[in-house]
Amino acid sequence: MSDLRKCFSGKDALITGGLGFIGSNLARALAALDARVTIVDSLIPAYGGNMFNIHGIEDRVTVNISDVRDRSSMNYLVRGRDFIFNLAGQVSHIDSLIDPFTDLEINCRSQLSILEACRWNNPGAKLLFAGTRGQYGKTLGTPVTEEHLMRPTDVNGINKIAGEWYHILYNNIYGIRACSLRLTNTYGPRHHMRTSRQGYLNWFIRLAMDDQVIPIYGDGAQLRDFNFVGDVVQAMLMAMASDETYGQVYNIGGGQPVSVARTAEKVVAVCGSGRIERREFPPEKKKIEIGDYVADFTKFREITGWTPKITLEEGLGLTVDYYRANRERYWSRGDGSDS
Amino acid sequence: MSDLRKCFSGKDALITGGLGFIGSNLARALAALDARVTIVDSLIPAYGGNMFNIHGIEDRVTVNISDVRDRSSMNYLVRGRDFIFNLAGQVSHIDSLIDPFTDLEINCRSQLSILEACRWNNPGAKLLFAGTRGQYGKTLGTPVTEEHLMRPTDVNGINKIAGEWYHILYNNIYGIRACSLRLTNTYGPRHHMRTSRQGYLNWFIRLAMDDQVIPIYGDGAQLRDFNFVGDVVQAMLMAMASDETYGQVYNIGGGQPVSVARTAEKVVAVCGSGRIERREFPPEKKKIEIGDYVADFTKFREITGWTPKITLEEGLGLTVDYYRANRERYWSRGDGSDS
Repeated sequence: MSDLRKCFSGKDALITGGLGFIGSNLARALAALDARVTIVDSLIPAYGGNMFNIHGIEDRVTVNISDVRDRSSMNYLVRGRDFIFNLAGQVSHIDSLIDPFTDLEINCRSQLSILEACRWNNPGAKLLFAGTRGQYGKTLGTPVTEEHLMRPTDVNGINKIAGEWYHILYNNIYGIRACSLRLTNTYGPRHHMRTSRQGYLNWFIRLAMDDQVIPIYGDGAQLRDFNFVGDVVQAMLMAMASDETYGQVYNIGGGQPVSVARTAEKVVAVCGSGRIERREFPPEKKKIEIGDYVADFTKFREITGWTPKITLEEGLGLTVDYYRANRERYWSRGDGSDS
Repeated sequence: MSDLRKCFSGKDALITGGLGFIGSNLARALAALDARVTIVDSLIPAYGGNMFNIHGIEDRVTVNISDVRDRSSMNYLVRGRDFIFNLAGQVSHIDSLIDPFTDLEINCRSQLSILEACRWNNPGAKLLFAGTRGQYGKTLGTPVTEEHLMRPTDVNGINKIAGEWYHILYNNIYGIRACSLRLTNTYGPRHHMRTSRQGYLNWFIRLAMDDQVIPIYGDGAQLRDFNFVGDVVQAMLMAMASDETYGQVYNIGGGQPVSVARTAEKVVAVCGSGRIERREFPPEKKKIEIGDYVADFTKFREITGWTPKITLEEGLGLTVDYYRANRERYWSRGDGSDS
């Protein structure tokens, strides 16, 4: 951790999507490392931003409410930053099919805007892009390395490929240092808990905490690879701190693949409430189901030394503890926007 | 050819970019097969559209001047079509770096618009997308199959990946039959001849016909794979006529890879004029240079039986004959827009 402190202490870090799930956990880690943190977030009600996510560090971060689609704001906001963690995104697979243009504007066009803003106003910045396993689509076998073909099953996966490759391209031709971490299912505290649209493990946790039914579609045997958010934040910091990561894309993963059904059982066990029911696969979900996903993160481990530290059991415990203590901040927003 | 006549005769075909190079050659072939052809073209001065390209078939095609970025027009224009050849595009690699947002609007967002238009207004249409070898970027070895990693070296290649994958996705989840041909260097009659920005072999031909210097950057040893436009048109017709191509991406190629330097020598020999000079690689071109490119088109040949028929020598002869007869229609537009 001392290396990370040396890297980030006193440095200027911008986090797009910084009031969201991963962004806010990252902001807390950067603040703890004495970085000067600026958060950009649009607080779109249906997305993951929540002002409570920075509770306790409000006086150590600067919050700028803005949308990454607002090119003029981004042109200004990128200036003078040492690090730009580019996490703002539309993350729902289903929503990307219902409204593909919004997904394109946020995940594709805005990424280009941010990179153009850096090209003209801050070419010395280091950038990290949050890629996704959804870029691979239906996998041809596991574990999946970075060489696996990308054949997305939804609009989100396609736009994320474009967003990622703009970063790699601007690294390669303009020397703006950028890399991408392709994230798998990330869970943990500060995840939005009002709908099932963004990350199903946290949604399972809500259902179990509410003693509701957790629906498992089909046999639930498909494997998923989970990362506790603290491990993901650590990976992002280590990726940015290394000078060997730029121009590269990396998988990260949890090293403990678990079936969807088994995950639900673990959630019920940790919560001591909730129950599981098998259901038919809804056709719109079946079409975009990707099969097993297990990340091979050897490439990233070898270059940075990163490995995930938190087991699924530990992570679930930490997550449930957090939401038990802060339930009213996540179960509904109080404005009825999306509850 | 009788199979193609059976497939297209009396059928309604829309060609976006239909006044351009490949689009107009395709329109002529479809008209000869007695298809009802509608051409959509924006006639943007800097691009490849030219009304003279449909000289002689004006009374057999319908021309609708419109831009694929105009979602409302496309919503209407896709209706009732049996076949949509989706060829409109920004094709300049360099321009995609100078103005990446225009490239994104045309090659990425407009493709999504056209597919959404089909999804809601004509889900029974069959679509063909014009992909590009630029999607692969710098190759890791030749020949290149469709399984080769896609690592583009310019914004155009990234947006083309997205445009292509929207087609495959809409095929897979909405049943709108679509496939993509990844084209390599295409040359021949009706190519725009006013700048070097869109396809260098035709530009070499202009320089030689004008008895000018053809500049070869570096050693000119990098291999290119050329397709005469007539062979490309045939591939497009055969791809659309087969029911086994949908949901698939295919390379096409000429089967006769030639170095850039050797190509220039052939052009000079065919024209009987022009001369070659070696130059330093300009840095902005060096950065996006892809190295050798040779397509492996086995997958497409096996499914459709297509092979290229026109040798480079024959194709160069046909091309030079065409421009000798129609030089004034291509050397400048007369409006001074881009001459």
